[in-house]
Formats: sequence, structure tokens, C-alpha cells
Amino acid sequence: MAPTTAANVGLAARDASGHLSPLTIARRNTGDNDVAIKIMFCGICHSDLHSIKNEWQNAIYPIIPGHEIAGVVTEVGKNVTKFKAGDKVGVGCMVNSCQSCENCNQGFENNCPGIIFTYNSVDRDGTVTYGGYSSMVVVHERFVVRFPEAMPLDKGAPLLCAGITVYSPMKYHGLNVPGMHVGVLGLGGLGHVAVKFGKAFGMKVTVISSSPGKKQEAIERLGADAFVLSKNAKEMQAALGTMDGIINTVSANIPVAPLLGLLKPNGKMILVGLPEKPIEIPPFALVSRNKTLAGSCIGGMADTQEMIDMAAKHGVTADIEVIGADYVNAAMERLAKADVRYRFVIDIGNTLGDCAAAASE
Amino acid sequence: MAPTTAANVGLAARDASGHLSPLTIARRNTGDNDVAIKIMFCGICHSDLHSIKNEWQNAIYPIIPGHEIAGVVTEVGKNVTKFKAGDKVGVGCMVNSCQSCENCNQGFENNCPGIIFTYNSVDRDGTVTYGGYSSMVVVHERFVVRFPEAMPLDKGAPLLCAGITVYSPMKYHGLNVPGMHVGVLGLGGLGHVAVKFGKAFGMKVTVISSSPGKKQEAIERLGADAFVLSKNAKEMQAALGTMDGIINTVSANIPVAPLLGLLKPNGKMILVGLPEKPIEIPPFALVSRNKTLAGSCIGGMADTQEMIDMAAKHGVTADIEVIGADYVNAAMERLAKADVRYRFVIDIGNTLGDCAAAASE
Repeated sequence: MAPTTAANVGLAARDASGHLSPLTIARRNTGDNDVAIKIMFCGICHSDLHSIKNEWQNAIYPIIPGHEIAGVVTEVGKNVTKFKAGDKVGVGCMVNSCQSCENCNQGFENNCPGIIFTYNSVDRDGTVTYGGYSSMVVVHERFVVRFPEAMPLDKGAPLLCAGITVYSPMKYHGLNVPGMHVGVLGLGGLGHVAVKFGKAFGMKVTVISSSPGKKQEAIERLGADAFVLSKNAKEMQAALGTMDGIINTVSANIPVAPLLGLLKPNGKMILVGLPEKPIEIPPFALVSRNKTLAGSCIGGMADTQEMIDMAAKHGVTADIEVIGADYVNAAMERLAKADVRYRFVIDIGNTLGDCAAAASE
Repeated sequence: MAPTTAANVGLAARDASGHLSPLTIARRNTGDNDVAIKIMFCGICHSDLHSIKNEWQNAIYPIIPGHEIAGVVTEVGKNVTKFKAGDKVGVGCMVNSCQSCENCNQGFENNCPGIIFTYNSVDRDGTVTYGGYSSMVVVHERFVVRFPEAMPLDKGAPLLCAGITVYSPMKYHGLNVPGMHVGVLGLGGLGHVAVKFGKAFGMKVTVISSSPGKKQEAIERLGADAFVLSKNAKEMQAALGTMDGIINTVSANIPVAPLLGLLKPNGKMILVGLPEKPIEIPPFALVSRNKTLAGSCIGGMADTQEMIDMAAKHGVTADIEVIGADYVNAAMERLAKADVRYRFVIDIGNTLGDCAAAASE
């Protein structure tokens, strides 16, 4: 298939300053199995900030970040059966994998050694992937998610990363049973969605946080059943041994052992945050009462579709602050200070063209 | 019920020297739900050494150690239905629990907050429990295990601790499926039994050890399929991402992160050893590829019965060195140097009386 002449405009980080400015790149062909998507909204994930600042030492500049993409299908390849032009769809953290290994066959494309991330990754054809801070994206249909009618594109976009990141381990580790008690450690982009899924699953949800100011927020705005202030010894003592699981969304280096104490026997703490330093686990904290510490990284494609279908059914969406493309740099600075409740979402459809035009003046 | 006049003779640690000498204590009544057992054999577990030396700072002297007890029923209480005099039975690490909590009701007496250990524990009636380095023991029938006819008392005794400690997590975490690949880290009292259960489950078993001398032992004597020398970078590299699970039996402080690399995606490492210092886990080592680190402590009573039944069916027993009661102090010294393959078992039935007589001369 001949290359098209269309081009897309993205917000690219050209250097390690972390500041984004417009970049025009050639459009990728819509291959036989691909879906071309006009991007309407893209969430800003903390990973984007890490990436553009090269904090993970793997940046391939220019980077166009963004892996919480929601938009509308404009074109499909001839083999595509799941989507057609006009469909509301989303793309999350990955856009390709080997599609043939044991992991892929079992629905864990996220575990495939050949996983291709949505941006800053070298795809199987040797091209670098560019993410959703952009006017369009072309993706293999396997990695495209259908948005149910009831799911808004703006509030649904962050679910493609934040949503599946908490949903997948809750399902995989059996922390999705009505009546169970789940703790959500940290109330940010991931945590606030975990609270909502916990309630949607019919569980008792307790938010655990070091910020007293989060209590009202957790209970009144997000519907959590209880709140434990982690630096309050009395509250921690009262919560000892009460939780079936804890979704640990914290990326800071905090002592984990006292939090394991909140678990019931056979309880599980799921790590979805990535603190910089190693976590210290006294063996006794796991061995006594058979406790589990498990890591989890996003989720497979079938689970992602299941997640967004369930979210639509139960009204689970992200709490967002919609911004224009020209506000992205300011948003990144606020994100670094955790000054957002709980996700910035870029209104790509209405503002990226303006931003590019303004920059080229 | 009036106290009987019988007494039992045990090998007690009277002080923190760790040396055992004979002690005569009054026999406990055989209560309505109790089983009185003439002890024939008792395994020596590393925990016994920790306990008599008060390394866990919880010693109640005099201690009579021993929680790998095998013997013959001599008397049962009037409510006992599962056992009768003459039955071959065993007792493991616990002799009581609340018997009414969620944990007990679900068959996890080992997780009961009211668990009473076989020795050095204060029972619900206020008496201190004494273990199996002794002529007899009286135990509630719930905590007595029936020895299948094919299971010898001497080689079966260590299964009551070492066996259930590895069997229970293999079952609970699904590491018991034919064709799976399980790693056994450390080849000692626990590890050698884990190898045998792995083979009995029909799995591929790889022993991981820092001792080159264990290779021949692992493969030729114990039937392991492969051996990885953990300090050999090439062997470790070749084994990366190949194992569904690892049973970590090591009590020394070793770096765990490189070993997590041997796991497949969704792989699980089960801690059954208790190193003194905290284990350091780089979060990425768990989060990437969804890996799990879980602790496990012995197992419930139904699982213990199931374990010994399966062991009998598949010919799984401990490799032992049978010793007389008067050799216990020497055995403890050798155990501290890991100089045993793989369990000392005291021939209580034939030698404890002699030892007591000799000591009283």
C-alpha cells in the first residue's frame, strides 16, 4: 500500500528540558490490519513526564507522549473486521506485540517480550512509535479498544492506562468479589479509579493515604467506605488484619511492611506504582499468615475491552481536568507537584491545530 | 477426668546454651477430644535450633523441641472418632487453634491468630506446650494426622513440617500442574522434599543452588531435571524467564531480584525460608511481567493430611539420618553447619528411655 500524503501534528519533546512543542511528522500507512484514528482526547499520565525528562534513561527524541488515547476511526485496513469508520475507540499503552507467543495467546500481550509501547518504542518495522499528543494515530486492530456508547471520550481516555492498570490485577488476583474489603493506597490518577472499580465490584473500599486532606475527598467525592491515615498509629492499629487486598499505587519510597500488616491472612498487596528504590520486605511480614506481594503492569487487550465495558455499565470514569494543547507544559509542571484531581486530559480535537498554527506564526 | 500418674520423658533445653538434657514432666490428661500418642520418631528441624538458642527471643525454658512427630496412638478421649489405639499417626507444627474463626473454618488453622505451636507456646488452658523430643504427646484430634500404611514413621516424620511447608504453597499458588516448570532454591531439609513433590506433581524441576556440589545430588539422587548454579552468570542467563514458580527455601540473606528474573511472566516466587534481614525488591522486578512474591507458613490440617496421603501414594519421603536420643546434641552442632542430608530423625522409641536412664545414673 502506497504511503498516504497526510501528515499528523504532535506535541513533541525535543530535548530533556521536558517542554513540549509542536512537531509535524509523516503519517504512517493504514496497513491491512490497521485502524486509523482521529484523536479527540489524550490523558496525561505520570509516565509521560518520566519519559520526556528521560528519567528512565530510554528516551528516543523527539518523543510524542500519550498513551491514554480516545478518538474516532477514520479509515480501516482491508482485513479489519472489528471496526469501521466513525467508531468511537481508544488506544492504551501498547500498539503491538509478537501476537504469537504464549503470553499473547493467553491474552497477556502486556507480558510479551516483543511488546511495542505506544510511544518511544521501536516498532517491528523499525519505526519509532509516537503517542497520543497528536492529531492522529494508526494502530493494529488488536490494540484498539471499542468505546461503549455510554463511555465519554474525555473521561474514558485515562481508563486506557489508569483503568486497566488497576482493573487487571484486581481481576487476576481475585480482588473483585462482592463483600471483600480492598484498600487503595494513594489517591491519585490510579488510586481514584481503583476506588471506583472497587465500588463497582461491590467491595468495601478503604483509602489509605498520608494526606489527611484526602479523607473527605475519598469518602464524599469518590464513594470510599473508609479512610486510614497511614501516619496515624491508632488508625493503622485499628485496621490491622482487615483487608483482603491492597492496591498500592504509590510511586514514592515508603515503608511497605507496616502496610502488609493491614492485610488479612492470605491477603495480597498489588504493586502498580514504581518507586525508584528497592522495597524492603522483612520475610516474616509475608511468611507469617501467607501474604502476597505482586506486581502488575497494565493488562491484556481482552481485559482492557472488558474493563471499559464494565466501566461504562457502572458509570466508572476518571475525574479529569480538560485542557487545551497549549496548556500542556503548564499541566506537566502541575502534575509534577501532584496538583491535579486526578487526570489532565488534552482536548486534542479542538485545540491541537490551533496550537500548531500559533507556534508556526 | 482425673490426671493420670504416667509421666513422659523429654529432652529439654534448660538454658540458652542450646544443649539438651533429659527432663521428666507430668503427663497431660487425655481430654475428651484428645489423642495420646507414644512417640516413635521425631525429626530435627532448623526451627528447633533457633528455638533452643532463643534466637527468636521467645523462649520459655525449659523447652522440649520437636514438631515432626510420628508415633502410635495409645489412648483416645471419648469424643474422638477419627483415631483409635494402635493407629499410626503424626503431629506437626501446631497442636491447637481457636477452631472457630474464618481461618480455621476455611482450613487455614495455620493462619489462626489463636494458633498454638507444638512447643514453646502457651496453650489455651495456660500450660506450656512441649514437643516431640519426648516419650509421648497428647493432642486434640483435629491436629493429628493419619499415617497411610505405606508411609514409614521415620521417613514420614519430617513431612509434618518440611513436607507441608512446601506442599501447601505449591497447591495454593497453583504450582502443582503437570508440565509446569518449578525451581527449587536451596537444597536442604525443605528443598529436597520440594524436589520430590515437584516430580510427584509431574512437573519439570530445576534446583537452583550456590553449591556446585549439589548438582549431582539434585539430579542423580533426588530426580531433579536440571540444576542452575546461581553464581554462574551463564547458567543464570540461560534460565531467564523459564520458570512458572520458584520455591525459595533459603534462610540466608541472598539477592532475590536476579532470581525473580528466572520466572516467566505471571511467575511466582514462594518464600518459605526466613532470612534475618529484609529482602530488597526493586519494584520493576515484580511489576514488569506481573510477578509475585508470596510468603507461606506450614499449612492447614486438611492439607497436611492430603499431603501425607499423596506422599504415600507417590513414595515421597524425607531423606534422613536416624540417630539415638543421646546423639541429639552432636546432631544440633552438625545441623548448624548444614552437615546432614537432609534431616536428622531421633529414634525416640528405641533410645529415649536409655538416654534418660544413663543421665540419671
